[in-house]
Amino acid sequence: MDLQGEDLTDAVVASFDGSLEPRTKEVLSALVRHLHAFAREVHLTEDEYFLAIDFLTRTGQISTGTRQEFVLLADVLGLSMLTVGLGNPKTSGATESTVFGPFFVEGSPEVKNGDDLANGAPGVPCLVSGRVLNTHGEPIANARVETWQADEDGFYDVQKEGLAGPQNRGHLTTDADGNYSFWAVKPVAYPIPVDGPVGELLRAGGRGWMRPAHIHFMVTAPGYHRLITHVFENGDPYLNQDAVFGVKDSLVTDFTQHPDGHYSVTYDLVLAEESQ
Amino acid sequence: MDLQGEDLTDAVVASFDGSLEPRTKEVLSALVRHLHAFAREVHLTEDEYFLAIDFLTRTGQISTGTRQEFVLLADVLGLSMLTVGLGNPKTSGATESTVFGPFFVEGSPEVKNGDDLANGAPGVPCLVSGRVLNTHGEPIANARVETWQADEDGFYDVQKEGLAGPQNRGHLTTDADGNYSFWAVKPVAYPIPVDGPVGELLRAGGRGWMRPAHIHFMVTAPGYHRLITHVFENGDPYLNQDAVFGVKDSLVTDFTQHPDGHYSVTYDLVLAEESQ
Ligand SMILES: [Cu+2]
Ligand SMILES: [Fe+3]
Ligand SMILES: [Fe+3]
Repeated sequence: MDLQGEDLTDAVVASFDGSLEPRTKEVLSALVRHLHAFAREVHLTEDEYFLAIDFLTRTGQISTGTRQEFVLLADVLGLSMLTVGLGNPKTSGATESTVFGPFFVEGSPEVKNGDDLANGAPGVPCLVSGRVLNTHGEPIANARVETWQADEDGFYDVQKEGLAGPQNRGHLTTDADGNYSFWAVKPVAYPIPVDGPVGELLRAGGRGWMRPAHIHFMVTAPGYHRLITHVFENGDPYLNQDAVFGVKDSLVTDFTQHPDGHYSVTYDLVLAEESQ
Repeated sequence: MDLQGEDLTDAVVASFDGSLEPRTKEVLSALVRHLHAFAREVHLTEDEYFLAIDFLTRTGQISTGTRQEFVLLADVLGLSMLTVGLGNPKTSGATESTVFGPFFVEGSPEVKNGDDLANGAPGVPCLVSGRVLNTHGEPIANARVETWQADEDGFYDVQKEGLAGPQNRGHLTTDADGNYSFWAVKPVAYPIPVDGPVGELLRAGGRGWMRPAHIHFMVTAPGYHRLITHVFENGDPYLNQDAVFGVKDSLVTDFTQHPDGHYSVTYDLVLAEESQ
């Protein structure tokens, strides 16, 4: 043995020949080839190698049940949006997908149409409503609409200590006409968490860390593809510099302010049939 | 904004244009290009994306001061050997480099030539000796020789609970003629740790997890490049299937058994001048 350069890469690729699943071999072989090509292209130094080891280790160690720093890393490297695009090719008429983000948590409260999800979170009240439809414009009854968003200070409930319960987070079921509606606070542009390894990366890269104001949705209904998306606010100054590259024009809509100060936004969420 | 495919990759690459250091931009741009090319080539699914997030998170979380699972991952993917090769081009006459491995720890005991480093570790005694030389064959006095290795059961001291002190680990200084010598136990082929994420990867990949018997060395002396290497045992059945691709023919040598049962091995460690 005297493996150097391309010989080494070939040997590592070949080591996966006995993979239990053909897909494992396919994915790991490609990973090794691109990883080695990257290291060779930049002539990766041993110091940089150890810096990367340390960075990745800390990225794992800062992650908890309510903070996922690797998702955040994949987000700021555009890998999340790339995967979303690969897995959700545009279906004519269906709502487009965007990043899942690191702030989803399992087990959100079940609420009813019209309920207030703010639960004391700071911010201006905002009525969020619309219908869940199929691509023929027909309503989907009993669709599950899950939503989560940050408060006026830019924080998700899971980023705050000592809360009595979830804020701006919940799931509900559409009525017979496909309607969903809930109150929350009007979302604002917020910084992604930069007190960890991803923050170091963004600062070293001279990058911003703001995301334009948005509401997260995950919508499921039997017979339809799961939709994971956001609704963004028209006019937000960060629409063209989203730190995670998640904005799509079709997901930007107007939030309307009313005389008493509260806001409302209406957005129909259109699911693609599973057969599509 | 409506970033898809190559547009998305270009936008992420461009986001690093303001990097504080040109090298940061160079490395991160290349990383993003190869990472995206990988995901696109294998048409990475969202399930695989989340599997990777979970895998990397656990790889960070299982790492401790004495276990570095990301180094182990880089080892089994051949990235460690690739980086070693990039950083240590062959210098005529100098000892070749190999992987650092995950079991080095700072602060090993200082010992004297001829001391026994085994410190109670199970195994057959083995006298390890040789000289530290420059590429002209001249001895280097006062070189720092650091060594570490596994015991007869295949475990490094840091993998064992409740030890009173280090085993088979220490550093010494060469004498006026460049000599180093110490007793340890004869190394044996051992499995890398497969009770973590890297083990899952190796099993899914249908790969082995043995390393041929070896002794680790790190040698430093003013005016010379630091040498990180192993000495492997001639005849070891795993020389051609090292789980971390670390074997080089020039690092394989004979271990001699003596009538009373003990072993000895002699290997000269040749440092490259810093000017080379
Ligand atoms: Cu590549
Ligand atoms: Fe968000
Ligand atoms: Fe080792």
